[in-house]
Amino acid sequence: MKRALLVLVALLLPLHAHAADVRVMKIDSRALAGNLAGDPATQTFAVYLPPGYDSSTARYPVVYLLHGIADTNDTWIKDWKIPELLDRLITSKKIEPLIVVMPNARNRFLGSFYVNSPVTGRWSDFIADEIVKLVDGTYRTIAKPESRGVAGHSMGGYGAIRFGMERPDVFRAVYALSPCCLDTVEDIGWGNFTSWMTFLTFKSYADAEAELQKGNFYPMAIVGLLSSHLPNVDAPMHVDVPIRREGPELLPNNEAYNKLRDQLPVHSAPRYQDNLRKLRALYMDFGYSDQFAHIPVATPAFSRVLSELRVPHVLEAYDGDHRQHVVERLERIVFPMFSSVLSRTP
Amino acid sequence: MKRALLVLVALLLPLHAHAADVRVMKIDSRALAGNLAGDPATQTFAVYLPPGYDSSTARYPVVYLLHGIADTNDTWIKDWKIPELLDRLITSKKIEPLIVVMPNARNRFLGSFYVNSPVTGRWSDFIADEIVKLVDGTYRTIAKPESRGVAGHSMGGYGAIRFGMERPDVFRAVYALSPCCLDTVEDIGWGNFTSWMTFLTFKSYADAEAELQKGNFYPMAIVGLLSSHLPNVDAPMHVDVPIRREGPELLPNNEAYNKLRDQLPVHSAPRYQDNLRKLRALYMDFGYSDQFAHIPVATPAFSRVLSELRVPHVLEAYDGDHRQHVVERLERIVFPMFSSVLSRTP
Amino acid sequence: MKRALLVLVALLLPLHAHAADVRVMKIDSRALAGNLAGDPATQTFAVYLPPGYDSSTARYPVVYLLHGIADTNDTWIKDWKIPELLDRLITSKKIEPLIVVMPNARNRFLGSFYVNSPVTGRWSDFIADEIVKLVDGTYRTIAKPESRGVAGHSMGGYGAIRFGMERPDVFRAVYALSPCCLDTVEDIGWGNFTSWMTFLTFKSYADAEAELQKGNFYPMAIVGLLSSHLPNVDAPMHVDVPIRREGPELLPNNEAYNKLRDQLPVHSAPRYQDNLRKLRALYMDFGYSDQFAHIPVATPAFSRVLSELRVPHVLEAYDGDHRQHVVERLERIVFPMFSSVLSRTP
Amino acid sequence: MKRALLVLVALLLPLHAHAADVRVMKIDSRALAGNLAGDPATQTFAVYLPPGYDSSTARYPVVYLLHGIADTNDTWIKDWKIPELLDRLITSKKIEPLIVVMPNARNRFLGSFYVNSPVTGRWSDFIADEIVKLVDGTYRTIAKPESRGVAGHSMGGYGAIRFGMERPDVFRAVYALSPCCLDTVEDIGWGNFTSWMTFLTFKSYADAEAELQKGNFYPMAIVGLLSSHLPNVDAPMHVDVPIRREGPELLPNNEAYNKLRDQLPVHSAPRYQDNLRKLRALYMDFGYSDQFAHIPVATPAFSRVLSELRVPHVLEAYDGDHRQHVVERLERIVFPMFSSVLSRTP
Repeated sequence: MKRALLVLVALLLPLHAHAADVRVMKIDSRALAGNLAGDPATQTFAVYLPPGYDSSTARYPVVYLLHGIADTNDTWIKDWKIPELLDRLITSKKIEPLIVVMPNARNRFLGSFYVNSPVTGRWSDFIADEIVKLVDGTYRTIAKPESRGVAGHSMGGYGAIRFGMERPDVFRAVYALSPCCLDTVEDIGWGNFTSWMTFLTFKSYADAEAELQKGNFYPMAIVGLLSSHLPNVDAPMHVDVPIRREGPELLPNNEAYNKLRDQLPVHSAPRYQDNLRKLRALYMDFGYSDQFAHIPVATPAFSRVLSELRVPHVLEAYDGDHRQHVVERLERIVFPMFSSVLSRTP
Repeated sequence: MKRALLVLVALLLPLHAHAADVRVMKIDSRALAGNLAGDPATQTFAVYLPPGYDSSTARYPVVYLLHGIADTNDTWIKDWKIPELLDRLITSKKIEPLIVVMPNARNRFLGSFYVNSPVTGRWSDFIADEIVKLVDGTYRTIAKPESRGVAGHSMGGYGAIRFGMERPDVFRAVYALSPCCLDTVEDIGWGNFTSWMTFLTFKSYADAEAELQKGNFYPMAIVGLLSSHLPNVDAPMHVDVPIRREGPELLPNNEAYNKLRDQLPVHSAPRYQDNLRKLRALYMDFGYSDQFAHIPVATPAFSRVLSELRVPHVLEAYDGDHRQHVVERLERIVFPMFSSVLSRTP
Repeated sequence: MKRALLVLVALLLPLHAHAADVRVMKIDSRALAGNLAGDPATQTFAVYLPPGYDSSTARYPVVYLLHGIADTNDTWIKDWKIPELLDRLITSKKIEPLIVVMPNARNRFLGSFYVNSPVTGRWSDFIADEIVKLVDGTYRTIAKPESRGVAGHSMGGYGAIRFGMERPDVFRAVYALSPCCLDTVEDIGWGNFTSWMTFLTFKSYADAEAELQKGNFYPMAIVGLLSSHLPNVDAPMHVDVPIRREGPELLPNNEAYNKLRDQLPVHSAPRYQDNLRKLRALYMDFGYSDQFAHIPVATPAFSRVLSELRVPHVLEAYDGDHRQHVVERLERIVFPMFSSVLSRTP
Repeated sequence: MKRALLVLVALLLPLHAHAADVRVMKIDSRALAGNLAGDPATQTFAVYLPPGYDSSTARYPVVYLLHGIADTNDTWIKDWKIPELLDRLITSKKIEPLIVVMPNARNRFLGSFYVNSPVTGRWSDFIADEIVKLVDGTYRTIAKPESRGVAGHSMGGYGAIRFGMERPDVFRAVYALSPCCLDTVEDIGWGNFTSWMTFLTFKSYADAEAELQKGNFYPMAIVGLLSSHLPNVDAPMHVDVPIRREGPELLPNNEAYNKLRDQLPVHSAPRYQDNLRKLRALYMDFGYSDQFAHIPVATPAFSRVLSELRVPHVLEAYDGDHRQHVVERLERIVFPMFSSVLSRTP
């Protein structure tokens, strides 16, 4: 019957025969209002609806997909064709129907890191409270934590893990693909010498933007990381700085450095262990050839911490780099996992 | 003969029409001949054939299932009904058809640990060379490493990992369920005080057997572990002993202790890293409440070593104990994994 | 009184002219009053005074020495002759003069673990508040944290680390010799099968005492560990139990097990990192052949945690067992370290 | 008497009142002959002789001091005044007299890493065989391994650990101050993005030298690291390259990358564990604020590996950076350690 309808739709709308049903929504966020980065409090996000949504009265589990730094929610749609992938998976019955929400978290600094900050805005609340409420009020979701998952890539994987730690009242299943920023190691630390040196010359956001124009990604990413994790509205650039220059060399400012590190999941997991144990699924993966050198180090380190805390989880280490396997893994592992673990009981 | 019997049963008892096709084979092993434990060189093992095997000319990938200590290959068949599970999975098309071979590796000491030893016999060669050759010569297998997998539970998980390390010429996919003995920690080490104290009183195998009769498992398991890993045909009990008694206390004999430990995968993995990288799949899991306390410690430690070596693998840590989830995991994860990764190209 | 006696002995027995000056003090503790173990609130402890104390007006730094489980403060004096050792070190100018206080923390359960508990009493407060106050009020100490160190062996090493974490207002230098109980691994965990099985049969303290009479140490040590770390005045035996029996096997009770583990330093260190960074010295050592199998595992694990937290410390791993090098290390390393780092500025 | 002589010397030679006795030696090395870097096979090195050497017939233990990358053996003498420090320590009897040898290992690429290479020469043999032989033939050393120690800073700490692993026939005591290069992490790995990008543009040594002239240290250090660890006389720049560029990004060349990493001590230690256990002392330290970000990560990782291998050692983690505490630590810890552990029995 559902299949018949799909065929009918295909006949009636041949030009969009396979066009997936993606709806763009607008939201006026209180959580982002007045942020010091000057990002708009009015944001758009995308909602994928499964085949047959309109002709059904069913309620569906929801997966939130969080994009990476320097990407936007359009990356899922335009670059990676996730809506079409979902249509194929659902139509071929490889997964059960799901609603998939793709919020935007790119801000002036390339990424909000999905956390609350007096400088960049409360991006965590924006998604976990405001968008979730709007989605649940607009679509036939199953509006309970056991039916809500969150997945993300890179900075989005970081966000997914943070939501798993901090918001089990909202999300109960997590998949982090090549998550960034689980610890201050490798290119996240002061071993990334040149980028910190450049950052330390900045006097204003305009300086960071000029550097980014030249193709230099990391210094702006540092502005983003610090604005979200070490905000200080009274300081230059509105941040505390965890690294200082001494002659030709860089050294950590211990207090700020420790404060940054203690927020990252390798270090904060013990404080959130009870929440982590509430999850139905906690998956993470990475490729050994990730261009962001901290990811193949910090992801297994996070797994090790979880094992010490006795928190159930799955770690997959594969050959590959930061982006090349993302779509294939969403198809083969991530969506089937959510399809299997999210509750379909309204 | 057994096949004939099964067919007969099927004819007589149509309600059990789907009785799985399991054939018992006999093998005269040269690898086990003359072992000092007195175990028979003539052994039997079981081969599961998928539905439709007899009416087809297809060739099939093969999975070898390795049982745990104190179990036998009958544990898969009689206790856990794996043949029936396989029939259901294949018939419902949840997995592609597979041949599954269930060798026996229980010896006089409860378990051979699937390794070669001048005391207990060459159990590794027995399986990887002799049984594999006989199976490939008897059934329509796809007789190449890419089409051969090995899975095991507990001591069998240990065996599966050892085969993955040492015999990529035979096996190219590994699943270790709650693998034992990856490191000399917890109940494998001298923290297991009482068991070592008891072992140290033994003068003959008969002493160990008498203790086992009383329901005391560990001292005999120690005999098995040492006979396979620290064999010394000229020593008392034919083993070197890694622990010694000093007054009321136990201390390690460093040389023998280090020799034992360096054979266990947490420590030997670096030497086998090139082989491990040849595998198509290397999966391992464990439950935090495993009764064998070393398993939830050593399994994530092995994953950590693999991550440092950049060896692709999957680790799953779950809530549960040593046996309660084995069948469910075989159904949901293990056989689907092999179905997906083993080559079906003859 | 004892001092008088010692002087008398010195007069009568000139061959022992150098008998060290050790004074026994009595204290009526409010912190221990009313403990449910029935241990006396009136306790004695020993104070070593350096040569020349009586003929000087100098003030001295103080080191508190904490004994191990099943030992008492007399172990330092009678078995290990620490006062004589101190006399030699000071007289030969290998160290500067120190006052050394040796409190007792052996209770009905062999050891109080130096922590506060509604069942066993507030042993931490007893030492860090009551004894310190009495010593500072009685002798010419330099009564400030920078001039106060704490060292201990085994359970006393555990106590020393706990004081370093929790009481930088009192102690600023720590040396833990073969510290016990830094994590729930090896013989501290449920791998110590027989001991837990025995403990689980106990219905009263008398049962534990009967078992101890038979020479069985661990079950009573478990009573001590749980009475101090998982006290529950309303439960049987006044404790929560982190392990349960299921058929012939043991499994953790996750809630109580996690609660125990999270108090142990490998897991609690992140919460105390700011205090740990205040220390002038944080030293720990262990022997690879320690009879308590958890010590060579948990001590380097604690060092690893400290390194991740960027807490200065020294770890020494040596060949040897639980007790054989303690006196030699006190002489060669521990007292020289305190002599060097404790402030002598009143 | 010795003291009297020193005073006399001081009176007679007021201009050199405190001049330490440092002798520069020349050596024609066969091990370095014909190296492809064009470094001279004739090298000089310095030998410090203790006060009283000339007026005595005593034999002395010897410590070899290995300098860091971009330093030379003159760094010990001119920048850090180690000979004067040694005179003070010996004269004040804080340490026993020692001979201290300071070889040079700076080559065209800033550092030889103290290893044998067909490209840069056999620097390990040069020191452990050729210089040791010449020193023992020239001065009154105690010419046996138990009386020979090796210490080094940064690249020299790496060298000291390598000698401890590979040449227990020569050295039996090791102190590594802030050792570099124990693992391919942080600034040693491809997280050091800009430096690798620059290196990948090099076509000749001249290119590296031009970059160094501009004050850019790392690209030349990479030339040095690869020339010593991944030499390939037939390849461009005579090295295999562990990192490759792909579009705007860097990825590892797995084979070369693994080959490099497996030579570094965190990974090679298991293969050398028997040698490491022969050492009388194995000390290492680091500061948390080291400018070379891999050092505070890889040094405790090496300690962890040693603990797993049950190799005795001391780890000290302190507050400080790469150079600021080196002299103070040599005075307070390093030379006293060697004075205490090196055999003085000829």
